[in-house]
Formats: sequence, C-alpha cells, structure tokens
Amino acid sequence: MAEANSKAEFVIGVDLGGTKILSGIFNGSLECIGTTKVSTKPQRGVDAVIERIERCVRDAVDEADLSLKQIAAVGVGAPGAVDFGAGSVIFAPNMEGWKDVPLKKELEKHLGLPVFIENDCNIAVLGVYVSELKSKPRSVVGIFVGTGIGGGLILNGELFGGYNHTAGEIGHMVVDVNGPKCGCGNKGCFEALASRTAIFQQIKAGIKDGEKTLLTEMLGDDLGDLRSGDLRKAIRRGDKFVDGIIARAAEYIGIATANLVNILNPEVVVLGGGVIEALAEEMMSVIVETARDYAMPGTMKGVEIVASKLGDNAGITGGAVLARRETR
Amino acid sequence: MAEANSKAEFVIGVDLGGTKILSGIFNGSLECIGTTKVSTKPQRGVDAVIERIERCVRDAVDEADLSLKQIAAVGVGAPGAVDFGAGSVIFAPNMEGWKDVPLKKELEKHLGLPVFIENDCNIAVLGVYVSELKSKPRSVVGIFVGTGIGGGLILNGELFGGYNHTAGEIGHMVVDVNGPKCGCGNKGCFEALASRTAIFQQIKAGIKDGEKTLLTEMLGDDLGDLRSGDLRKAIRRGDKFVDGIIARAAEYIGIATANLVNILNPEVVVLGGGVIEALAEEMMSVIVETARDYAMPGTMKGVEIVASKLGDNAGITGGAVLARRETR
Repeated sequence: MAEANSKAEFVIGVDLGGTKILSGIFNGSLECIGTTKVSTKPQRGVDAVIERIERCVRDAVDEADLSLKQIAAVGVGAPGAVDFGAGSVIFAPNMEGWKDVPLKKELEKHLGLPVFIENDCNIAVLGVYVSELKSKPRSVVGIFVGTGIGGGLILNGELFGGYNHTAGEIGHMVVDVNGPKCGCGNKGCFEALASRTAIFQQIKAGIKDGEKTLLTEMLGDDLGDLRSGDLRKAIRRGDKFVDGIIARAAEYIGIATANLVNILNPEVVVLGGGVIEALAEEMMSVIVETARDYAMPGTMKGVEIVASKLGDNAGITGGAVLARRETR
Repeated sequence: MAEANSKAEFVIGVDLGGTKILSGIFNGSLECIGTTKVSTKPQRGVDAVIERIERCVRDAVDEADLSLKQIAAVGVGAPGAVDFGAGSVIFAPNMEGWKDVPLKKELEKHLGLPVFIENDCNIAVLGVYVSELKSKPRSVVGIFVGTGIGGGLILNGELFGGYNHTAGEIGHMVVDVNGPKCGCGNKGCFEALASRTAIFQQIKAGIKDGEKTLLTEMLGDDLGDLRSGDLRKAIRRGDKFVDGIIARAAEYIGIATANLVNILNPEVVVLGGGVIEALAEEMMSVIVETARDYAMPGTMKGVEIVASKLGDNAGITGGAVLARRETR
C-alpha cells in the first residue's frame, strides 16, 4: 500500500460513474478548490477506465497548480457492490467486465498515493453527512434520484454496508407490484417509477398519446437532448403535462421515503441526485407531505426530510471525507 | 429501581399482546421451564392490564414451584413504540389509553423485581437471535406474520431502534400502491396483503363470490372460529382455493423479504409469528424462491432465509434474554 504523506494538506475525491468520472481537490477545511471531469467510456475495458481515473486525478492536481506530493490520499466512489476492506469492486452491473476488480491496488500503483474505495451512494451519503449535516444525526438515509435510484445508510454514526456490501439498494424496493417493468426484470421498483429514466419514458409515452407539452417546442418532437433542467423550465412556463408527471414522481419518492422511515426510523432523510438538484423546488413539498401521510404515527416525530445542497458534488465530497478519515 | 438478586437462577420473559399476556420462566441455560397465559382485556384500562401482567408473572412462578426471590429479573415485550432507556411505552396503537405509560416503574413496584421493557417485535428477534442463531450473524431482519405484520432489526450485533424507537415497522411498507386498503389508512401495505387478517378477508370474500372450500364443511358457512391451523388442514386435504390464497400471501412475503434484503443486506432473515408457525411447510419454499427472484444480483449471496422454530415462544425467550443480559 502506498504511504500517506502526513504533511500533505489536500485530499482528492473521485466519483466514478457509468458515464463520467469527476475528481475534486479538497483543502484542510473540506472545501472543494477545483474539479475535473472526463468521460468513463466503460466499453473500452477495465484497464482503460482505470487509466482514465488516473488521468482525471492528475488533471485535477495540475489544474489546481499542485503536485501529487501535496495530496494525502484519494477516496473513490464506485458503482455497484464494493468491498471497502479488500479495496475491490465486487461487481458493477452498469459497467461491463467489472467483476472483482482490485481498484484500490491498481490506482495506488498508478498514482503512488493511498487510495480508498466505497460504493458511490455510500460515499455520497457520507459526504452529505459530514459536510452538510456536520456528523450530528445518529442515523441518516440518503436517497439519490438520477438516471437510476440508489441509497446509502448511516446507522449509529457509521456507514452500513451489510453482509455483501450491497445495503442501500433502495431503487429496487418494489412499491407497485403491478407497476411498470424495471430494468432489473421486476415490476414496479421505485426506480421504474421515479428515476429520470422513468420520468423521460412517461413523457415520451404521453407525447406519443397526443399530450401537448412545451418540451416539443423547446427541443423538437423527438426531445433529442432532454435534461432534468428542461422539465423545470417547462413547469415554470406553465406546462401542466410535465407538472403532473413530476408531481406523480414526487409522490412515489414520498411513499418510498415513508417506507424507509417506517423500516429504519432515521433522524434525517436526505435527498440528492440530478433529478432532485434540478427540481427540488417543484418536488420537495410533495415528497415531504406524502411521506408524512404514509409514515406510521409517531415514527415521523422530529424526523427531517431535506434536499442536499451538495448536488453533483456529493460523491467527490464523500470521497474526500473518506480519504481524510483514513489518513488521519 | 428494584435490585437484582444476583444469586437468583431464573429470569422471566413476558409477551404483552393486545389479546393475551404470556409469561415464561427460564433457567440458567435459557430453557423455558413453564409458561402461563392470561387474556389482556385492554378495554379495562392501563392499570388493570398492569395488574394482569403481575398476576400472569406470579402465576408462572407459582406453577413452577418457585418464589419471586428466585427470579433475577423480568423482560417484557410490549406492542408499539417503547423507550427502553426510559422504561416506558410511548404509544401502542392496538391498546387504548397506552400513551407514555411508565411500565417498567409500575411493574417493579408491583413485583419488587427489576423489569426491562422493549418493543415486542424487537424482543422476538432478540430471542431468535440469541437462542436460535447463537448470536452468530452480524445482522438479522425478523419478519413476524400474525394478526398484523411486525419486524425487528439486529444490526452489527445490536437491536436497532431508530430515532423514535419505532424502527422495524415493516408491516406498513407499501408494496402495492393500488392494493387493498390497510387499517392504517394507506393502500397496499405489506400487512394488508399477507397478514392473517388479510388472508382471512380474502377467504371470506372468495366464499361470498361462490368459491368452494373445505373450510365451510369444517367450520360452517360463517367460518366462526377460523384459525391459521385450519388453513393448513384444508390445504393438506387438497383445497385448491385456500392453497392459492396462501401461495399468493407467501409471494408477497417473498417480495417484502427481497425489499428488506435490498435495503439492509442482512446475513439472515428469520420469519416467525402465528401464520408462519402454522404454515411454514406450505409457505417457506415460495417465500424463499420469490425473494431470490426479486433481490438484486449479488445481494442474496450467502444470505439465509429461515423460519424460526421458537414459534409463539419467541417473545418470552427474548424477554428472558433481555432480563438476563441486563442483570449479568
């Protein structure tokens, strides 16, 4: 294992996603002083992705006018099941060929720095927990709504990984057993009802059925480059169709939140991910109201349901927290 | 607080339910050497119930030819939200008037013995964890299917209560958002699909719709005193209608199990309660198969799904474990 330079002031957080790799440099006060992004290109194979992570880290260091010697450690959030102790990605369903990849060892070889890896949603909730919630609550459930839906659990002040390091797979909690087909093969998973993918499918199906929406004016009939931010713009310009779909997705997120509060009774539920970042103002009141409606009496007392302010930086912040904690 | 007699060999576990109170005497090897049962009669008020608990405990001691001096402590499982530290029942939805009841203090006054209280499903999973699983797994989810459905969580070797001591309310996890109405006011809760109450309703509705079943031959057209054991008898005599309803309930229990494994990734899921006790042979294979079908790849690896052998004694066993642990 590479040795940490205990005098080094900075740490790096890396968010490895199926589409992009994001690196952020953090100073001693856990402030992000610069980020770099490269595309992941998982189709080029595991080794190529590892080289791209290395390049993303080196670019971030260079952009910040630093050298690798000033970096104490790197914390990486990777998709799928991650064995923190072994430093390996056990499997990552969205990245072909990623099975038992010794990512920690490989990156340490490439960078000459200590590297620590965790599941991406675990690391995101860790980032929010330490940076935003100041490690105060005992238990936190993180719900991240983007292309898919993932979760992370802080229980009794610690990340909770479970027996196979897969805890927090809240996106595949069945909420509507006769609902729409999910990518996993089941029906009515939370992810199949309220992820960006599900929302976009509902919008495209509606347009096909003759629904009128400003989105076709904005982006053309095939909605080429549709993004969550476009939905916000359409709603603010009075698009009832999009408004209805987003309200329904928010209701499902509220029901899933209530399920998780009933099961785990955390002190805080924090919502993040691209969909929440773009549409917090439109969705949060419906989410909170629905969750309070569906939770058992007594369980919600004093429980906070909040949107994270870290947005897309939750992952790299968590990576930095992990790197800092492991080299202190 | 009453002082424990450290030389006393025996402890008592009490399972306080909405219908009946069960007390069991346990020896130093955690073997149950005798039980006593009285009805709860919650309509007579909180004080009357506390006196009935006292009587049930005294009767158990007398039946075993012991005296209270030979008892080290009493552990009580109570329905609803319980504050272990304060020794109070915060609220119990199924028992009128039970709000902030200082049950520990009251029972200690009545019995002159140390008393410890916990939520009934927590105590049941604790009993199964220590007595059946020998405290080996790190994390266990208990699913108890009876009149309602409750759960208990052992996480990192400890009971997990959550922020308001209500964690484990798995019966009100929404699984079928457009499903049948639940007693809690929502639709499609796990409890509204697979509890004994739900199963009996489905059977009665089927009979009304002209379904043929051996149950009416066995018990008359109104199914007066229908019990879970009657369903087992009917299935074993070839009753296709009852068989179908039980298979469907088992599928829902399997889906809920998969949800919990996806969220918490425990090492063991243990199923108990009256319905499982009566119908384990009919239900368990469907439960396990459905859970494996619905869980995410990788999460189920090495995870055991088992029926508890403690049956109705899980609660009193857990009470004994708690009493023993707190006076050691």
